[in-house]
Amino acid sequence: QIVAQLRLALAPKILAGKQVLITAGPTWESLDPARGLSNRASGKQGFALARACAEAGARVQLISGPSQEATPPGVLRENVTSAQEMLEATLRALAIPTDLFIANAAVADHRPALQSTEKLPKTAIAEQLTLTVNPDIVSSVHQHARRPRLIVAFAAETQDHLDSARDKATRKGADIMIVNDISQRHTGMGAESNACSILEGSDLTEIPTCSKIDLARHLIRHIAENHFASKVTEQHGTVTNSHS
Amino acid sequence: QIVAQLRLALAPKILAGKQVLITAGPTWESLDPARGLSNRASGKQGFALARACAEAGARVQLISGPSQEATPPGVLRENVTSAQEMLEATLRALAIPTDLFIANAAVADHRPALQSTEKLPKTAIAEQLTLTVNPDIVSSVHQHARRPRLIVAFAAETQDHLDSARDKATRKGADIMIVNDISQRHTGMGAESNACSILEGSDLTEIPTCSKIDLARHLIRHIAENHFASKVTEQHGTVTNSHS
Repeated sequence: QIVAQLRLALAPKILAGKQVLITAGPTWESLDPARGLSNRASGKQGFALARACAEAGARVQLISGPSQEATPPGVLRENVTSAQEMLEATLRALAIPTDLFIANAAVADHRPALQSTEKLPKTAIAEQLTLTVNPDIVSSVHQHARRPRLIVAFAAETQDHLDSARDKATRKGADIMIVNDISQRHTGMGAESNACSILEGSDLTEIPTCSKIDLARHLIRHIAENHFASKVTEQHGTVTNSHS
Repeated sequence: QIVAQLRLALAPKILAGKQVLITAGPTWESLDPARGLSNRASGKQGFALARACAEAGARVQLISGPSQEATPPGVLRENVTSAQEMLEATLRALAIPTDLFIANAAVADHRPALQSTEKLPKTAIAEQLTLTVNPDIVSSVHQHARRPRLIVAFAAETQDHLDSARDKATRKGADIMIVNDISQRHTGMGAESNACSILEGSDLTEIPTCSKIDLARHLIRHIAENHFASKVTEQHGTVTNSHS
């Protein structure tokens, strides 16, 4: 706790004055009060990103699906459950002009078409569960009148990582895709460590396996240096905050 | 931690020498490495029951689905993911003659009929998810050659609690049904507190809202006094261990 506070105080303020919006965790798509669809995300990577952005001096709004993670110091957190709620909270958050949107949440692609307020008897759940496609939060933010200057989206993949992620970037309107290989045991969902590829146009940067907080700090430094350092120069005629 | 150790040492040993098997938490039924079906159980009540049984002097084997809860002192824990894995672990555990089986886990009734080892593209998940019915763990334990002397099963309900739970007890072969009303905000899945009805034949005992560990201790005392106290008398001619 003391270390976290020191980190917060002493880290280079490479995102000073920036407004950052982050989604984290899974979403939960309920079928009834007990059952639902979800995904394996723990929220660890998204919460680590929120911590790293707060350390870097940003104002951080974190919108989280169900997660056991503790809110990092200096981070404003809103809890949501479903993809629909996460979309609504995200669009509301855009009322504050946002410099950087990091879509880390593992948003369920589908929800049960019908949601019961009473627990369904086992026999009422037939052999088929009818699904509805959830809204795409990254696309919605990209098309929003107050689109953040930079949209960073995550893609969890098990094969053809980069091709699949490039398609997603184009389709969703993300400026940067962070590609996670979740087929490895020590990286990705639920794990303590992670590795990723940073895909930006034709540029590719790899961050090898490290703790999720180290990965978050590397990533935030990469983003700040490539996208917010020059802005600092333009605005203030100084780059003192742009390197650690 | 010290308090937990003291509790463990000083609590009345009303289940001394008994072998207890407990299932806890949700199960996770994967569709692919990211997505799946689950339920809202946190594992809190099941872990509290394991703690209360260990305090009461029992040897406790806990089989848990995905849960963030810490293993209570003196409890042997095995982690599983799916209902099928939980069934297999439970039946393996019956190799040790078991006095008391507490089926607290919120076992998913269904699993996706097909499970992919690769993450499915969003478009590959059609508007229908085909489901398969999961095995019923309580029924399987009831029908097992080494059926525990007492089977206590949990039923999470939102309406017609007692009728529905009585049906379940008969159908599954449980001696005692513990009925949770999960339609209340402060009880049941994910909450810190709980309340329940203990249903045994035509007897009904209510435990009003309290913390999950207090509910566990009340429940274990109720079970020990009604089912294991006389046994102690028969075997040892003494009831010193049967009351607190």
